[in-house]
Amino acid sequence: MQQTLKDLREELHYINHAILKLLNRRAKVVMGVLEVKQRENIPLHVPQREMEMLQDLIDHNTGPFPDDSVRHLFKEIFQASVALMEDRKAGALRVSRAFRQQDLEIPVGDLVIGQESTIIAGPCAVESEEQMDMVARGLARMGIRFLRGGAYKPRSSPYSFQGLGEDGLKLLKAAADRYGMKTVTEVMDTRMVDMVRDYADILQIGTRNMYNYELLREVGRTRKPVLLKRGFSATIDEFLSAAEYILMEGNDKVILCERGIRTFERQTRNTLDISAIPILRRMSYLPVLVDVSHAAGRKDILPSLARASLAAGASGLMVEVHPFPAVARSDSQQQLDLDEFAAFLDAIGYAFPKFQVIQDETPVATEAAGFR
Amino acid sequence: MQQTLKDLREELHYINHAILKLLNRRAKVVMGVLEVKQRENIPLHVPQREMEMLQDLIDHNTGPFPDDSVRHLFKEIFQASVALMEDRKAGALRVSRAFRQQDLEIPVGDLVIGQESTIIAGPCAVESEEQMDMVARGLARMGIRFLRGGAYKPRSSPYSFQGLGEDGLKLLKAAADRYGMKTVTEVMDTRMVDMVRDYADILQIGTRNMYNYELLREVGRTRKPVLLKRGFSATIDEFLSAAEYILMEGNDKVILCERGIRTFERQTRNTLDISAIPILRRMSYLPVLVDVSHAAGRKDILPSLARASLAAGASGLMVEVHPFPAVARSDSQQQLDLDEFAAFLDAIGYAFPKFQVIQDETPVATEAAGFR
Amino acid sequence: MQQTLKDLREELHYINHAILKLLNRRAKVVMGVLEVKQRENIPLHVPQREMEMLQDLIDHNTGPFPDDSVRHLFKEIFQASVALMEDRKAGALRVSRAFRQQDLEIPVGDLVIGQESTIIAGPCAVESEEQMDMVARGLARMGIRFLRGGAYKPRSSPYSFQGLGEDGLKLLKAAADRYGMKTVTEVMDTRMVDMVRDYADILQIGTRNMYNYELLREVGRTRKPVLLKRGFSATIDEFLSAAEYILMEGNDKVILCERGIRTFERQTRNTLDISAIPILRRMSYLPVLVDVSHAAGRKDILPSLARASLAAGASGLMVEVHPFPAVARSDSQQQLDLDEFAAFLDAIGYAFPKFQVIQDETPVATEAAGFR
Amino acid sequence: MQQTLKDLREELHYINHAILKLLNRRAKVVMGVLEVKQRENIPLHVPQREMEMLQDLIDHNTGPFPDDSVRHLFKEIFQASVALMEDRKAGALRVSRAFRQQDLEIPVGDLVIGQESTIIAGPCAVESEEQMDMVARGLARMGIRFLRGGAYKPRSSPYSFQGLGEDGLKLLKAAADRYGMKTVTEVMDTRMVDMVRDYADILQIGTRNMYNYELLREVGRTRKPVLLKRGFSATIDEFLSAAEYILMEGNDKVILCERGIRTFERQTRNTLDISAIPILRRMSYLPVLVDVSHAAGRKDILPSLARASLAAGASGLMVEVHPFPAVARSDSQQQLDLDEFAAFLDAIGYAFPKFQVIQDETPVATEAAGFR
Repeated sequence: MQQTLKDLREELHYINHAILKLLNRRAKVVMGVLEVKQRENIPLHVPQREMEMLQDLIDHNTGPFPDDSVRHLFKEIFQASVALMEDRKAGALRVSRAFRQQDLEIPVGDLVIGQESTIIAGPCAVESEEQMDMVARGLARMGIRFLRGGAYKPRSSPYSFQGLGEDGLKLLKAAADRYGMKTVTEVMDTRMVDMVRDYADILQIGTRNMYNYELLREVGRTRKPVLLKRGFSATIDEFLSAAEYILMEGNDKVILCERGIRTFERQTRNTLDISAIPILRRMSYLPVLVDVSHAAGRKDILPSLARASLAAGASGLMVEVHPFPAVARSDSQQQLDLDEFAAFLDAIGYAFPKFQVIQDETPVATEAAGFR
Repeated sequence: MQQTLKDLREELHYINHAILKLLNRRAKVVMGVLEVKQRENIPLHVPQREMEMLQDLIDHNTGPFPDDSVRHLFKEIFQASVALMEDRKAGALRVSRAFRQQDLEIPVGDLVIGQESTIIAGPCAVESEEQMDMVARGLARMGIRFLRGGAYKPRSSPYSFQGLGEDGLKLLKAAADRYGMKTVTEVMDTRMVDMVRDYADILQIGTRNMYNYELLREVGRTRKPVLLKRGFSATIDEFLSAAEYILMEGNDKVILCERGIRTFERQTRNTLDISAIPILRRMSYLPVLVDVSHAAGRKDILPSLARASLAAGASGLMVEVHPFPAVARSDSQQQLDLDEFAAFLDAIGYAFPKFQVIQDETPVATEAAGFR
Repeated sequence: MQQTLKDLREELHYINHAILKLLNRRAKVVMGVLEVKQRENIPLHVPQREMEMLQDLIDHNTGPFPDDSVRHLFKEIFQASVALMEDRKAGALRVSRAFRQQDLEIPVGDLVIGQESTIIAGPCAVESEEQMDMVARGLARMGIRFLRGGAYKPRSSPYSFQGLGEDGLKLLKAAADRYGMKTVTEVMDTRMVDMVRDYADILQIGTRNMYNYELLREVGRTRKPVLLKRGFSATIDEFLSAAEYILMEGNDKVILCERGIRTFERQTRNTLDISAIPILRRMSYLPVLVDVSHAAGRKDILPSLARASLAAGASGLMVEVHPFPAVARSDSQQQLDLDEFAAFLDAIGYAFPKFQVIQDETPVATEAAGFR
Repeated sequence: MQQTLKDLREELHYINHAILKLLNRRAKVVMGVLEVKQRENIPLHVPQREMEMLQDLIDHNTGPFPDDSVRHLFKEIFQASVALMEDRKAGALRVSRAFRQQDLEIPVGDLVIGQESTIIAGPCAVESEEQMDMVARGLARMGIRFLRGGAYKPRSSPYSFQGLGEDGLKLLKAAADRYGMKTVTEVMDTRMVDMVRDYADILQIGTRNMYNYELLREVGRTRKPVLLKRGFSATIDEFLSAAEYILMEGNDKVILCERGIRTFERQTRNTLDISAIPILRRMSYLPVLVDVSHAAGRKDILPSLARASLAAGASGLMVEVHPFPAVARSDSQQQLDLDEFAAFLDAIGYAFPKFQVIQDETPVATEAAGFR
């Protein structure tokens, strides 16, 4: 007896709903697996186990679906389950939007990261008092309030300039204090955190140390804001997990900093992962800055990258500025001089402050800087 | 007898200038090498030869410079020479700014690519007359003038939907004609160029075919505008060389399209190489579009990527739009429906046209679309 | 009470099988629908009905799967059903071990690929009669039976040497014939397949054309063995799918060739993916060769890579050999000269044949070559 | 008349040597300046003078080198001179073959790394006394003499198992001592080096810490052999520079360990860079091991990777072995159980020792293990 189309459609309807129920029941079991795996620290996604499950299903496939359809459909089901597990896992993190809805604003003295576009500028490395004074004064006159400068420089070669150490920190802080700026400087080793924090308003964790979990924990034990750079080969998930190391120690003042990832492309030193900005902002409430200098490794495209970063939702920029890049002891190819930096700011729509210069050199702003 | 500092400085001055002369003489020789190598098709940069030259110099180093300083300095000299050779080589290309100063504008009927921001939208694949009519009508009402849609789909699996072929082209063109739109569609094989060009206002070369030089030559022999997508693992230099294949056949109406590169990151289908935009625009005068849909592979970050692309200097965007993405036969995860697309346009500052609808369904614009 | 991983996995197992049964029951119903529709002349694929079914399922979704996942999974299920109706998917991938258990041996005249280690050698490009004669004679004396040489060269730059075309094919074949060798040469375009096959014993698809599906189909329509190179950024899954394009046209004589992938490392031209060898051999029955020259891009490490490849299970090697690499028109840095190639063979444990030279130049082997 | 490549290369050769002579003459003058300055107490490094010299050279630059290149090259020359004055660069890199011709053999108690193929095996993490006893006993019976096991585990997620800490080190050492084995274990933080060295025969630096230069320096100050893993995105040059950090502190007992790099391929956890083995061996005299478990991230291809590694010149292997991988607290997918490990050893041509078991459990070897 032939079935009518209506009968068949009813049966389809019934089967669809049965499949839906089973899929959701399956999803619940998978979440149970997630719970156990997280507790016992077992990897979530296991291609080999999937292959075995697939083979088992293929072995029991009676058709009419051909084996490759079964394989394909179950692959999709597995993938959806993995995605679900990853969502749940991510949701549990302190860094996640699930944990906190609103964007975080991080006060640094009288300033705030995460409100208007923050600009952090300064040389790659602190080299001398004169250098720091020149750059700080120049930046301050442009209305820049965050002064960066490395006193400890992680360099590929042990024979490259490694920074001035604590002397460098002193020069950085003195220059910043002189011009009413806040300091951003890198800490490379757990043993130095206590010392460096005395000079730093924001502790920076460099790209090479993003996986240095002991260091992350140590800065997590301070109450200083931490600027965490993404490892140049770190996935976005690993980046957020690194931030989690800091937060779980009680320090939630973490600023994420995208600075380019390592790819096959040679025109740039790194490939700025612009998509990371909206993704980080969706996944987390932490502010996201972009270090355009390290991403590009060249000066000519900095304004484009900066505009793109802000357009993509970045909370600010980090730029290397040196009074005389040609004689800089590191990164000389990518550091802007003060005039170039002024042109850069102009190109990205920055409005310079108006100043009244009274008596000595210290300028007094009469109209604040900002973006046009 | 002790030399005075002044004497020594004079000697230094003399030596500096002698080195400068030799460096430039060396650069000239290197350019001669370039000429020969290009003529004879020999690779420009040869690490092993460099190593031999370095070893030879080390063998003859009498100090006081230690060997590693000599090695380092000559490496820098070699590198500067390579950079010089590459500059010269790039300068000779028809695609380069050296060949033409002003940005190229490419007329397509009454439209122009390379002036105001162009938006190309439409489904991944042409599937049916109804689908094409719905999407074309919806897009036209939003003021979109370029309709994309694939009739030949290069798919990883031979068992995936491969497109409707010439029937699809007919549906595409009919829908475009009905709403006054221009068509953008992919050609995959040299033998099909003649046929596809009858339906296409812009011939698209897909990412998988960027290295298909015979195909590039063949579209270079037409006079149709060509939208050339960057290979997902192609360097910027290779991308421009691929464009050169088209131009050298006489067709200079090439539109470059960045669409993301393959990296280790998994949150996105590809990593949008935002830096490629300003670099391509510096190196070449050709317009640069960005296919945000393929870069992201997900819908939620499309507005951010679009804003960033335009901020970085892109001449326009390409977006996948399908009337019912959920039932699309390919790329269903990344296609926007018409409402989502309208929201997307709004989010990137697009001003919808004002229409007067007279009699039948065909709308008449009374105020043009554009960007706010 | 907490469930153990074992319990949960058992439940998963049960659910998987229940879903499988329902999917197949659903497929049977769909085939009933097909029967009715065909009888009553009703269109098979009705997107709108699909959408209604999807909406109905979403409306009844209780989670934990989010609506998007439900939509996606059912879309896949619907699509698989459509495919089933269209009878396009028949069985597992033809390239897979599931399709065929034993390793495939591919006869090429009196030779066989997939038995003892095959060595394919010869210049990157055919350049002249003398060049081809010298290299073929030299190789033949070492017992090498496969002569490679490109007459069509896909080059990044359109200004680089593009090969001699059909003249090159003639020189290749003449040299091979003279010394009793088989030819391996690249075909770049669908329109040339018919011509190139007259000169080639093995048709090569280059790394840049691995995604050129029309070309894959076209060589699939010949009965010539095809050496398919992995795209330099292709995943192993994409590589096997590309092979599937050839097999599905009826040509199952496909040789897979790993040749290195594009990574960040600069010491080598590409990164030889040694793991691909055992993985391809597990997933497929097709023979796997390794092109060590393109992987390395330098000569000094070739023996190490060759030994490693054979140790990992490769069925043979491909090596670029040129009588005078210094003047080669392409790839001069990585081509071995004949002496270097003899040393290479010796270094990898190859036993040279013993010859008796009678009368003219043609050597007669008295003891075959092979591996010690 | 066109110059040949040979002519041009001869001229280059001549110019290179002339530049070398001038550079060294310049260095001599600079050392004279140093002498005067030291005598007269004048600051050594005067950035402003450098800038004036640079400007003077730029003013006299006639090309073809662009000013930027001239500036960059002379900056490097000045910097090398400063370094020379500071006497910081003494000789070639200590890790290089130029520094030491013969392969280094590193004694570890009665064992030696760098002679016969070393095999280091053991669990990813130390979990319990029973686990360590079972695995150590099993390994010892197979003739394995190096026991690995992590007590401090750098994990992407702070919520994953982080290791047992010093308790784990005690369990590791106790198990090793019981069966006459040497310990290999990771140190993650500078502050722990002193403590960990008491339990470790070989200190391991993990892949995430390859760029942790303070940690490298700290283990360089011990006299313990150091197993340095390559960063998963480190170039070979960066890897050797990291080793240099250890050597420059006086510890030359460094073992390099390739463990796979991060690429786009998903079939393996990492891509084993097989080429790194011969390249490292050419560039350096340090022994090179391969961690096949982390490279593969799956068990099925381990024998192939191990055979390939040894064939490529590796001095040994590192393999994760756990008595019950299914319940391991980390890396459960890639750890072999003892039977699988025995099969693995057999598959790579390892000859098991012959034992005489007297009285208690401790086996006495009557015939040593080794490779067939």
